[in-house]
Amino acid sequence: MKKSIGAKAIIQPNPVLIIGSYDEIGNPNIMAVAWGGICCSQPPCASISLRKATHTYGNIRNSKAFSINIPSILFVKEADYVGIYSGKHENKFESLGLTPVKSDVVNAPYIEEFPFVLECEVLKVVEIGLHTQFIGEIKDIKADESILDENGLPDIEKVKPFIYDHVGPRYYALGEFLGKAYSIGRKK
Amino acid sequence: MKKSIGAKAIIQPNPVLIIGSYDEIGNPNIMAVAWGGICCSQPPCASISLRKATHTYGNIRNSKAFSINIPSILFVKEADYVGIYSGKHENKFESLGLTPVKSDVVNAPYIEEFPFVLECEVLKVVEIGLHTQFIGEIKDIKADESILDENGLPDIEKVKPFIYDHVGPRYYALGEFLGKAYSIGRKK
Repeated sequence: MKKSIGAKAIIQPNPVLIIGSYDEIGNPNIMAVAWGGICCSQPPCASISLRKATHTYGNIRNSKAFSINIPSILFVKEADYVGIYSGKHENKFESLGLTPVKSDVVNAPYIEEFPFVLECEVLKVVEIGLHTQFIGEIKDIKADESILDENGLPDIEKVKPFIYDHVGPRYYALGEFLGKAYSIGRKK
Repeated sequence: MKKSIGAKAIIQPNPVLIIGSYDEIGNPNIMAVAWGGICCSQPPCASISLRKATHTYGNIRNSKAFSINIPSILFVKEADYVGIYSGKHENKFESLGLTPVKSDVVNAPYIEEFPFVLECEVLKVVEIGLHTQFIGEIKDIKADESILDENGLPDIEKVKPFIYDHVGPRYYALGEFLGKAYSIGRKK
């Protein structure tokens, strides 16, 4: 018998996505988003939800593009910083010593130091409530060679992404391998 | 210098969300979704992306409601089973010995054995491409008392959710605590 705890915005786990965008005069900014992920395989798309009050909201409305940068656990403090301070008052790339690279496929900057990044062009804007969802078509992924597996795709054990928990709020590393998907649940 | 690996639907990590729905004659079904998460705080909303070919797609189109069930690592094999087999051919609750409970707030079943569940009513349907995104307003969360923290919210260390990696494809447990959010990145 379960207990009602009310209508709350809680799913566990959440990813940590660092969103790159340009303002109207080409200054690069980054913000942290936990509410987002892949939302379509063909065309490959990712969604992120932002409040209108954020600096990045205005940037993406204008530029129609953004990057999604996946941080490794080496950058947990930088990711937290990005989630605390607004790009309205500082250039967070400079504050953190991170390198903005202009994407060659969309009008957005990505973070050179992070293991892999998605370059997205806005496909749809969905007004929900306090948050607006931007659905971006993934035009390319740029990755460090050192994190690729034998098929040339990001190996999560090399990427070492981390997890956000909105209740804590806390960050966690990736834990132990539990099994192969589409395999461990097969009928005997 | 990063390498282009092409336009692919890869973000790491992904959650494992088990979606509950009723068919037209009230049979409960469950499917596994990795592409979904919270998308708005006010009203609290969650999104899930489904292919039209799935049994659940037709169910939700008809019932306008679904549950999102968060599995603990105790149920990794069951979650994988749910992702392999279609409800068109069997009642997966019965196959797995799981208990469907009719939600008291939306027209959808949830899984009694899972630590917490979100009860969602369809607010928007967004056609993207191969996948359709259902945005559901969270009308309530039902949780086991045993996984709640001192504030009455799901404690991720007690929930013990797991992570899906679409590249592997593989499952991983939650790892070590890395730090408090909105804290470890603060300026000194």
